[in-house]
Amino acid sequence: MKIIGKIGDKTDNTLDLSEGERFKTFLRRVAERVKVAEGVDAIEDILRCIYRNEPVSTKRISQYTKLPLPVVSRVRSILERSRVLKRDERGAIYTEYGRKLVEDSLKFKMKKDLKCPTCKGRGIVLDEMFKEILRKHREYAKLRPTVNTRIDQSHATPETAVYRAALMADRGDLEGKRILFIGDDDLTSIPTAMTRFPEEVVVMDIDERLLNLIEEISKREGLNIETVKQDFREELDRSYWGQFDTVFTDPPYTLEGLKLFLSRGVEGLGEGNSGVLYLAFSHKPIEEYLEVQRIINSMNFAIYELIPGFNTYEGSEIIGNTTFLARLVGKNLKKFKKEDIDLNKLYTGDVRPTVRYYRCLRCNKIYRIDGRDRVIEDLTCECGSRKFRMIKREKIKEREL
Amino acid sequence: MKIIGKIGDKTDNTLDLSEGERFKTFLRRVAERVKVAEGVDAIEDILRCIYRNEPVSTKRISQYTKLPLPVVSRVRSILERSRVLKRDERGAIYTEYGRKLVEDSLKFKMKKDLKCPTCKGRGIVLDEMFKEILRKHREYAKLRPTVNTRIDQSHATPETAVYRAALMADRGDLEGKRILFIGDDDLTSIPTAMTRFPEEVVVMDIDERLLNLIEEISKREGLNIETVKQDFREELDRSYWGQFDTVFTDPPYTLEGLKLFLSRGVEGLGEGNSGVLYLAFSHKPIEEYLEVQRIINSMNFAIYELIPGFNTYEGSEIIGNTTFLARLVGKNLKKFKKEDIDLNKLYTGDVRPTVRYYRCLRCNKIYRIDGRDRVIEDLTCECGSRKFRMIKREKIKEREL
Repeated sequence: MKIIGKIGDKTDNTLDLSEGERFKTFLRRVAERVKVAEGVDAIEDILRCIYRNEPVSTKRISQYTKLPLPVVSRVRSILERSRVLKRDERGAIYTEYGRKLVEDSLKFKMKKDLKCPTCKGRGIVLDEMFKEILRKHREYAKLRPTVNTRIDQSHATPETAVYRAALMADRGDLEGKRILFIGDDDLTSIPTAMTRFPEEVVVMDIDERLLNLIEEISKREGLNIETVKQDFREELDRSYWGQFDTVFTDPPYTLEGLKLFLSRGVEGLGEGNSGVLYLAFSHKPIEEYLEVQRIINSMNFAIYELIPGFNTYEGSEIIGNTTFLARLVGKNLKKFKKEDIDLNKLYTGDVRPTVRYYRCLRCNKIYRIDGRDRVIEDLTCECGSRKFRMIKREKIKEREL
Repeated sequence: MKIIGKIGDKTDNTLDLSEGERFKTFLRRVAERVKVAEGVDAIEDILRCIYRNEPVSTKRISQYTKLPLPVVSRVRSILERSRVLKRDERGAIYTEYGRKLVEDSLKFKMKKDLKCPTCKGRGIVLDEMFKEILRKHREYAKLRPTVNTRIDQSHATPETAVYRAALMADRGDLEGKRILFIGDDDLTSIPTAMTRFPEEVVVMDIDERLLNLIEEISKREGLNIETVKQDFREELDRSYWGQFDTVFTDPPYTLEGLKLFLSRGVEGLGEGNSGVLYLAFSHKPIEEYLEVQRIINSMNFAIYELIPGFNTYEGSEIIGNTTFLARLVGKNLKKFKKEDIDLNKLYTGDVRPTVRYYRCLRCNKIYRIDGRDRVIEDLTCECGSRKFRMIKREKIKEREL
């Protein structure tokens, strides 16, 4: 691996960054160093984000660039050590030296994004009815059970859930339609049903805590949501096959998770039928993105619309990033055969095992959690406390497996 | 073919539309009658558009639903004869009877779209610089040569061209980048170069009238745009291979046209390289849409973003509809081999031969133009006039070929 010199390190001529080309070489080395799949473009994206938005937090950069937070964090550190960036209390800013470098070398000129200030790039706005739904849903969202990271649960913000319902309504996929949620740890079914637009709303999930909460809210609000406990590794009960017009799913962000959840969606829409499926899925490096789209296409879904960064998630900083929302329209739909889905690679923890370090907030003892045998939800500290903060996260390398 | 009865036709029980299900049957018959590929969903989309936007013109309905204008026009006529719709001077509106039908049967409730009023759903807005560019570009756009329908030319509005440049700038694909236009009858290169963001702007087109105009504007504005006369059936000159970061193309809306223009784009970005390609392409029925996306994927482009209806076109009412804009990101790019592109099916006139009827504006004589042997641009009336209005357009059926 190449060593990245510091800027101004006069002992290494190749790192005298007085010229644009040398700065680009430096950026390529940064990309190699942090091993980011998107390569030097990712580093440029981070620099551009800071140029247009400084001062800006690491989390915001991650949301903006769609890059994982740990990558952004490492790049930021390297660029600070190289005196391209510095930090004030509100986030990353350029040094004078750094600003001149990116303007000379990368030709940055745009000081501001053109993102629509009204809709934040989503393309739709909430009317009075949806604003009222958001007000209510903010309260209900507080009642969500804690996430189960083992099955890749994470919480989209209440705003995200309401904007999803608004988008589906705007596109004509709710009024008079039968809607199926393949998993719903974000409680998107609640604002969807609150519109009173759909004929029928059915939520399937494996998590009974979640189903109980949805039932409770449904009763209180008279929403008539039907809940079904469902392990998506199994086929849906045949009574549900072909019973829906619209499906919503935010599956585990693995290729096998995608195949599985979309296949259950196809059962709901009906094999051989037409239908609309809304898919929330994470921004991926290009090779994996290509695979995602091939999977979608192979089921006879076409991407009619794709809005990057539509969904934002709350909770841990690691999942502080965004996912895209795609509106898929299918005809003569096909699902994957059971034998073509590898059930051992459903969750991100299966595919890319990650070890997380947690510090007990009471006694400061540190625990190592690999997410396979033990998850943070099960952990109790020796001191009796169950409150922890994640302090570090790293992928387990192949040789350690 | 089934006959569609009029509503209130008491001699035919199946058409007594007092119940929702019967209305749906009626709508299915309308879909069959107009032979729309999207089926009954298309009829529902038209009804929904009118419900939310009445009074609304046929052209606006076509833009909204992404359906061809002749289809919308026929559906509207049938629904008027069936007393579901009527018309006032501003466009289609519901009869009381029709409104009750769609509310009871299709459960329409939303009286208004949620489309963002600020950005019209595009997600971006123009800043002062882009507004100034639009002001100038409106004037330049008036100088465009008349369209050559034989090669599927059509004119995107000046706003569309400027919003395209703004989107590319916002996404970080202009600053410091080398941009190639594979065809540019919309003059999108002009606002793009006016930003002064790109390092290099090259326009390739087969139409010398267009290239001359671009050169002229480029000189006047000091834009330094390079123009190249290029028949895209031939490979680009090797000196251009791999020389670009970003490609823009609005190809003929056929599968073979797509393969050809994207392949030229891949030459510009470099086979085996990474790169970004912006594609404007028409909304297609689902089967064809699937093919479009398979072609894109097979070249190792992934759809990172897709905005339906981003581009609007002016001129003839027939092309008064919209196309989507997709931002494709590719890695290890591949082009189609020459033998895998059918050059006899490049243009819509090749694939779906269309006959158009034109009326001379001076003497009212009517001409039939099939677009293969003779195009409207070549026509001179017996009376000496060259001004015509298109009065009818129909596809040539297989048996007539």
